Amino acid sequence: MQTVFEFKEKIEVFSWASAVGKSEHDGPLGRLFDFWDETDRFGKNTWELAESELSHAVLALALKRAGLSHREVAFLFSGDLQNQCVASSAAHVEEEIPFLGIYGACSTCTEGLLLSAVMLNAAEEPLVGAAVTTSHNSAAERQFRTPIEYGGQRSPTAQWTATAGGAFLLRRGEQHPHIVRAMPGIMVDGGIKDASNMGAAMAPAAAASILSYLRLTGTAPADYDAIVTGDLGREGSALLEMLLREKGVFLGDRHRDCGNMMYDPKKSDCHAGGSGCGCSAAVLAGHFLPCLAEGEYRRILFLSTGALMSPASIQQGGSIIGVAPVIELVGGNGNG
Amino acid sequence: MQTVFEFKEKIEVFSWASAVGKSEHDGPLGRLFDFWDETDRFGKNTWELAESELSHAVLALALKRAGLSHREVAFLFSGDLQNQCVASSAAHVEEEIPFLGIYGACSTCTEGLLLSAVMLNAAEEPLVGAAVTTSHNSAAERQFRTPIEYGGQRSPTAQWTATAGGAFLLRRGEQHPHIVRAMPGIMVDGGIKDASNMGAAMAPAAAASILSYLRLTGTAPADYDAIVTGDLGREGSALLEMLLREKGVFLGDRHRDCGNMMYDPKKSDCHAGGSGCGCSAAVLAGHFLPCLAEGEYRRILFLSTGALMSPASIQQGGSIIGVAPVIELVGGNGNG
Repeated sequence: MQTVFEFKEKIEVFSWASAVGKSEHDGPLGRLFDFWDETDRFGKNTWELAESELSHAVLALALKRAGLSHREVAFLFSGDLQNQCVASSAAHVEEEIPFLGIYGACSTCTEGLLLSAVMLNAAEEPLVGAAVTTSHNSAAERQFRTPIEYGGQRSPTAQWTATAGGAFLLRRGEQHPHIVRAMPGIMVDGGIKDASNMGAAMAPAAAASILSYLRLTGTAPADYDAIVTGDLGREGSALLEMLLREKGVFLGDRHRDCGNMMYDPKKSDCHAGGSGCGCSAAVLAGHFLPCLAEGEYRRILFLSTGALMSPASIQQGGSIIGVAPVIELVGGNGNG
Repeated sequence: MQTVFEFKEKIEVFSWASAVGKSEHDGPLGRLFDFWDETDRFGKNTWELAESELSHAVLALALKRAGLSHREVAFLFSGDLQNQCVASSAAHVEEEIPFLGIYGACSTCTEGLLLSAVMLNAAEEPLVGAAVTTSHNSAAERQFRTPIEYGGQRSPTAQWTATAGGAFLLRRGEQHPHIVRAMPGIMVDGGIKDASNMGAAMAPAAAASILSYLRLTGTAPADYDAIVTGDLGREGSALLEMLLREKGVFLGDRHRDCGNMMYDPKKSDCHAGGSGCGCSAAVLAGHFLPCLAEGEYRRILFLSTGALMSPASIQQGGSIIGVAPVIELVGGNGNG
């Protein structure tokens, strides 16, 4: 039974930060991210630890901007793509923040924000919560597919796992961009078994979530300045448009996909666009939250899209399952 | 900042179910579990799909007992130990329940119950939520260590990943055993790097959570009929006792560990005891919830203990990080 959680307490994202690797900094949004590393290593000796450092650093920056310390944060929802989400646990173990690990593949950013809003509503007293999501191209490629040194030919439908991450601090309030409603997503199995075509695997889940959300809230695409998907890429975005058109729903220019926004297809080797759970996290922090804070957007839907699979499930012939939780974000009453 | 969430709405676990494999059914608690499979395969051709089937079947049984269908469930928190938690996503994709994936290693059962209580408190209207946790010995061993066919010698401190799972249905109320308070855990790095000694890696986190919870709630061990840890096993339980004794806290017979309860060390090859996130889930569903429902226990603390690590993090010399969220469960006012 799909349910839209209408929050009694609006939950504002009052501070945020983003970071990316070289390819992402070279992309169209490059100057919007807070920091980047030309080597993608962030000072570490392994790709795995580089991702942990990115995760740690974006949260530290978001806290610094808010004038807060780690000790003032009541909980942290964090997840990534590494096996057993070790990028997140290794990143935040020294910080002594109560930790709740989540795994939603590339839907992790929205899942963490949704659950943060839920936690802050359930708490007796006002608290500060945090949500951090990252991915790293070199860590993900060797884990899910082949090490990048192998130099395998990539399929035209393949997406480029972004080296990217975003951190968000949340509390009750509506001065800053805030979450007013949210909806967990129902998993959809579209029968896709090709780990190099995750856009096609996620598009049916994104379509299902958008249709459910509009129906349950009695809203139409025109009520939103943007309907943002996580990382469908060009393949998945075209499929989403087709699936919605069949139901008489047209998003038009309102549809923005973080995976399409991250790289310039003419200049980079990104094939069908960006992916990785850090992609939508960094684009939310680097682009959409500032747009909401500055009044460029008044109201958006934000649904990171996850492809639930593992190398073992693919080898055993399993389908890639899509999921797309939704949060509705409204611009702040203050100056952001 | 560690915070105890005091729930305005008490959240009752009004239906539950458990299932195990052969070794677990041969153990001291064997007759308490709802079903088991002598082959550990649950009718499937791979260990991975066997775990998914177990996950699906325990939820179906909990729903059947409550006279509910999948469509009446507003959300499902589910997690397991397989890479990218695919056991859970594959298990529940056909059910059309809004899905929120979690990863807390062996702390997943408590994390799912904690987050379910939070969701049900944040919702505007009364809803039914579900939490399901599983693990499978043969799937976990070949993923984390070596395939069981390899027949590697196991260390005396090694624990036996349980083939087990538990499903829980929750809603507002206090007729049945119910969650009154909960606390997310802070991660603790005790410097353990041996994947065959996870009890030692988790014990410091369990000690930290118990000490924090007693301090923040102003309670003492005598206020609880049992303080239940997930799967510290014999090694970890002895360390927990030592760490608490250093702080002047004595649990005595109140301490029960699901990993110690699952197997008979004289009859089985379990070495230091059971582990795996399904272990505490099955023991909660098979033993502790019935004890609370029948009045044998009035009030317990339940903290599944997680060891956050991956094969890659171990190979790269990383520590195994412990985490132990806490829920406080009180017996029902009804007949359970």
